[in-house]
Amino acid sequence: MAEEKNTFSGEEQDIIIGRNSVAEALRSGREIDTLYIAKGDRSGSIGLIIGLARERNAAVKEIDRRKLDAMCGGANHQGVAAKVAAHGYSSVDDILAAAQEKGEQAFVIICDEIEDPHNLGAIIRTADACGAHGVIIPKRRGVSLTYAVGKASAGALEYVPVARVTNLASAIDDLKQKGFWIYAADMGGTPWNEQDYSGKVALVIGSEGRGISRLVKEKCDFTVSLPMKGKINSLNASVAAGILMYEVIKNR
Amino acid sequence: MAEEKNTFSGEEQDIIIGRNSVAEALRSGREIDTLYIAKGDRSGSIGLIIGLARERNAAVKEIDRRKLDAMCGGANHQGVAAKVAAHGYSSVDDILAAAQEKGEQAFVIICDEIEDPHNLGAIIRTADACGAHGVIIPKRRGVSLTYAVGKASAGALEYVPVARVTNLASAIDDLKQKGFWIYAADMGGTPWNEQDYSGKVALVIGSEGRGISRLVKEKCDFTVSLPMKGKINSLNASVAAGILMYEVIKNR
Repeated sequence: MAEEKNTFSGEEQDIIIGRNSVAEALRSGREIDTLYIAKGDRSGSIGLIIGLARERNAAVKEIDRRKLDAMCGGANHQGVAAKVAAHGYSSVDDILAAAQEKGEQAFVIICDEIEDPHNLGAIIRTADACGAHGVIIPKRRGVSLTYAVGKASAGALEYVPVARVTNLASAIDDLKQKGFWIYAADMGGTPWNEQDYSGKVALVIGSEGRGISRLVKEKCDFTVSLPMKGKINSLNASVAAGILMYEVIKNR
Repeated sequence: MAEEKNTFSGEEQDIIIGRNSVAEALRSGREIDTLYIAKGDRSGSIGLIIGLARERNAAVKEIDRRKLDAMCGGANHQGVAAKVAAHGYSSVDDILAAAQEKGEQAFVIICDEIEDPHNLGAIIRTADACGAHGVIIPKRRGVSLTYAVGKASAGALEYVPVARVTNLASAIDDLKQKGFWIYAADMGGTPWNEQDYSGKVALVIGSEGRGISRLVKEKCDFTVSLPMKGKINSLNASVAAGILMYEVIKNR
């Protein structure tokens, strides 16, 4: 009864509402994507809840109380709500270990702040289909593993490990130390089909509106581009990702 | 005022409601996608309105009165509503003439009952980007050029001609007579990157759930397939279309 009252399915995610319910969910080991705290509210058990969230590696976000009201559909949130992930996160090491176990050259997709759940879901689905080993997303920006992402992945989220990192640029540094070549999907680079993709590959896909952020772009070894012959100068992010992913696997 | 009352923007489309408004819209030359008539209602001016719709090549559909009520948001529809297209339709001949004018081998995409507006929009966007000459969709099934399709196309709908045909199988017969090779995107065919795509190309993309319908499939000259190395045995329709479209243009 209390459970029913404090959890509801939004269009895109499950939200757990209220201090006791959120603390309980964090303690139970349920995968919490993001903890939302009403701005400025540090009363009572909120400090404890934030500590639990940090321990569990959930993102913690302060938001305006009125936004929190809307997110909770008017329920009494006591300043606290938590967004449940549709699936658990992996680590980058898990992804690399899986590639090694298969005896394959690792191939990972890095999504730099993809915002549309349809796109992230479709990228995860394509990653499964083409045999990529995992997807890396940033912790604080872009869409996380919401239920809408799971749905758009057509079930692939169950099979493709997704790692969430605090800092994409330093994650890329780590990959480079491990022998990866980093390919940015962006304008003005080598035509996509004239690039050599041998070795360990990390393919970076930019956000729908802004493309790849400067700090991430600077870390990339190569830029690969799809020709744009029309009037609209960009492709849907998941379509561009798909074309490049199948180009990478072509010679494998 | 009356105009405001009788037109409202739904999430995906504009609807014109009521006999006078619909008749006027049909007479004005505004692009009407589909005329909806309450089931069994042939009173008064409805026969005239159906005649106008047929003249204008709009699809005419009888639907349950309660569905019509819901579609019209409770407004007094008098048994008649019309869905406005986000963009005018072209003909297949227009598409072929445009290719000829550019002095290019024609390349068209045939969408066999794509249902998700995001997918049709993304396919139109990719068609623009890769320099395909147009998209062909069926008149009665699958999504038509709704506003959601226009939005998902990121503006490409303004530049890519979309033709709507009564019968895809016979449209394919016509294309074959004009020297096209028809490629079905489906399982069990030639690997996508081992196929020759020279000459005039029509690429057939199946619906999200059921793939390409049998009658259409039988008309195709070749089947091209993307390898599926994962657990989920299919790609998002617009992603698969994008991979194949860029493969077709690779050697052009």
